[in-house]
Amino acid sequence: MIDLQARLREVGERALIRHLRSRIPAGTGVVVGVGDDAAAVETTPVTLITTDALVEGVHFKREWTPARLLGRKALSVNLSDIAAMAGSARNAVVSLCLPPDLPVMFVDELYDGLLERAAESNVNLVGGNVSSTSGPVVIDIAMLGHGGERLLRRSGAVAGDLIVVTGGLGAAAAGLRLLAQGARLGPDGDLVATGIWTDSSREALLHCLRAQLDPTPPLALGRAFVEEEMAHAAIDISDGLSNDLRTLCEESGVAARLSLSLVPVDPSAASLSRAQGDDGLGMALHGGEDYQLLVAVPRERYPEVAGLGQVWNIPITAVGEFVEGAPDVLVDLGGKVESLAPGAHEHFRS
Amino acid sequence: MIDLQARLREVGERALIRHLRSRIPAGTGVVVGVGDDAAAVETTPVTLITTDALVEGVHFKREWTPARLLGRKALSVNLSDIAAMAGSARNAVVSLCLPPDLPVMFVDELYDGLLERAAESNVNLVGGNVSSTSGPVVIDIAMLGHGGERLLRRSGAVAGDLIVVTGGLGAAAAGLRLLAQGARLGPDGDLVATGIWTDSSREALLHCLRAQLDPTPPLALGRAFVEEEMAHAAIDISDGLSNDLRTLCEESGVAARLSLSLVPVDPSAASLSRAQGDDGLGMALHGGEDYQLLVAVPRERYPEVAGLGQVWNIPITAVGEFVEGAPDVLVDLGGKVESLAPGAHEHFRS
Repeated sequence: MIDLQARLREVGERALIRHLRSRIPAGTGVVVGVGDDAAAVETTPVTLITTDALVEGVHFKREWTPARLLGRKALSVNLSDIAAMAGSARNAVVSLCLPPDLPVMFVDELYDGLLERAAESNVNLVGGNVSSTSGPVVIDIAMLGHGGERLLRRSGAVAGDLIVVTGGLGAAAAGLRLLAQGARLGPDGDLVATGIWTDSSREALLHCLRAQLDPTPPLALGRAFVEEEMAHAAIDISDGLSNDLRTLCEESGVAARLSLSLVPVDPSAASLSRAQGDDGLGMALHGGEDYQLLVAVPRERYPEVAGLGQVWNIPITAVGEFVEGAPDVLVDLGGKVESLAPGAHEHFRS
Repeated sequence: MIDLQARLREVGERALIRHLRSRIPAGTGVVVGVGDDAAAVETTPVTLITTDALVEGVHFKREWTPARLLGRKALSVNLSDIAAMAGSARNAVVSLCLPPDLPVMFVDELYDGLLERAAESNVNLVGGNVSSTSGPVVIDIAMLGHGGERLLRRSGAVAGDLIVVTGGLGAAAAGLRLLAQGARLGPDGDLVATGIWTDSSREALLHCLRAQLDPTPPLALGRAFVEEEMAHAAIDISDGLSNDLRTLCEESGVAARLSLSLVPVDPSAASLSRAQGDDGLGMALHGGEDYQLLVAVPRERYPEVAGLGQVWNIPITAVGEFVEGAPDVLVDLGGKVESLAPGAHEHFRS
């Protein structure tokens, strides 16, 4: 038994790995799991692979983030990438950089979240790596998924397609602002502090904090869209609508005309923003981390796409259309068409 | 064109990614390469996956390590894991944590090494991630390989098998000591400083520094062993013979009797050690990072294994045998059998 109250420097790498390995269950399609030079998994003829990392101080603050939720989010951001290609996530490896003074408990709770989210999404944890670091905690995951007959690329949008967004936007950014204002979730995702807010905002706080700390991308939608040929292209909205729409335009060689009045600002984010004299549109456009889908939908298929949203109980909103032209995001500001500057976080720039 | 003289904070994430992406060639078996939510690659029914990271201050010092060699090593340590399972490496994703004050040139040279080593080993770079960090540089790679009909596990050694080691051991540890003594390689792997050593040791310095900074695991040997059923089990020697032999024993449920006099100390490491009043055995046993193979060979197949070594021009040495008993590494010290304590680096302990 490992001492969960100890620090990593007291138990060492081998005891930590032995403990983590003992927690990982056998999985379907796993030929060789954790504990060999490499894992071996059953794969289809086309395999999707993605990698995404959460870096302390950049993607999260330890004092704002229960480790269990961090584990869930580390998987979710990768699940979102596989789903945006219309794939099915299957296996993941987890690479951790951990400072020696970190409590073992932190890593154990991180694995609570990783294992739970993996089980929810039918993903096997099949291996990983742990390294010491003199710097911030890094949780880096590489995820494999089965690719179906059709993939959903970023490059397929054509002029005339509708710009379609799943879910509401801005809640994750609102959640980040709430954390800065002292609101907190506990490890179980319950509201444990309201910060500057009163208890009357409880539901909105909970919704936005969860959107930030425990995002739930619409994992099945991309596959549903592509199987019925309802989508020409898609990208997950991780860097903010303004950024990701621009990326989709660049990859597809089209321009986008975005109607600001149609952008689906998340209702909780909107109500909290209004209380602070803001309409929330900025967060919905530039906030990032929503992990919803941005999809290029052939106009004639839109009614079916909207119908799918009803079946899956996820709002579906057309927010504009793709048009011919140099890659750009165009908005109509009182009769004047202007380019919408990308406004989200960019790594390395402060 | 990106300004290679600039720092990352001056060019930003998007320009960096655009630049790196422009350098990555299309690859065989790549359905979707860099630049989408996920990559898609052709896979066989069984796919191997491994992940290994190099963390600044733990695995390397920036002032000792040309970035190009660092890129090569980051791939090599993963290639070694795939090869030790008797697989063929095919695709990799590269996840980087980079401080904003890092020169763009560093990342560009890192990619010189990554791309070159990938081309040498028929591996496609199919995606990745870059994140800012307030801490050390992290190069984290996840690698996929094709698994053949038979895999080479850590768990197959049986009592009576010979303990066989490929190559010489201790050169990488000797190289690390040389770096601390001021010896240096340039980006092209040439000797640019001898530190405390004279030019007469040139060849030995070069050999050991390269073993540390640009290791070349015997990538084809594992596959050759398993195809001819010459091996019951294998592990790559990354944590030192004393550690990795113990691990093989634990996974296989056997003990090992190791003959210290048979351990193949790398000749260059031995000669440099002798000059400092040491026989080099400690480095060969505990030094780590040799990325050679430790193999459990059925006794009757040993002559063929030795023959393969001649064909591939890699020394093959039997250093003892596996025996029944609780997992342990036993050595004969002047007639007294003792347990060999693992002596290599363990993360989190100082």
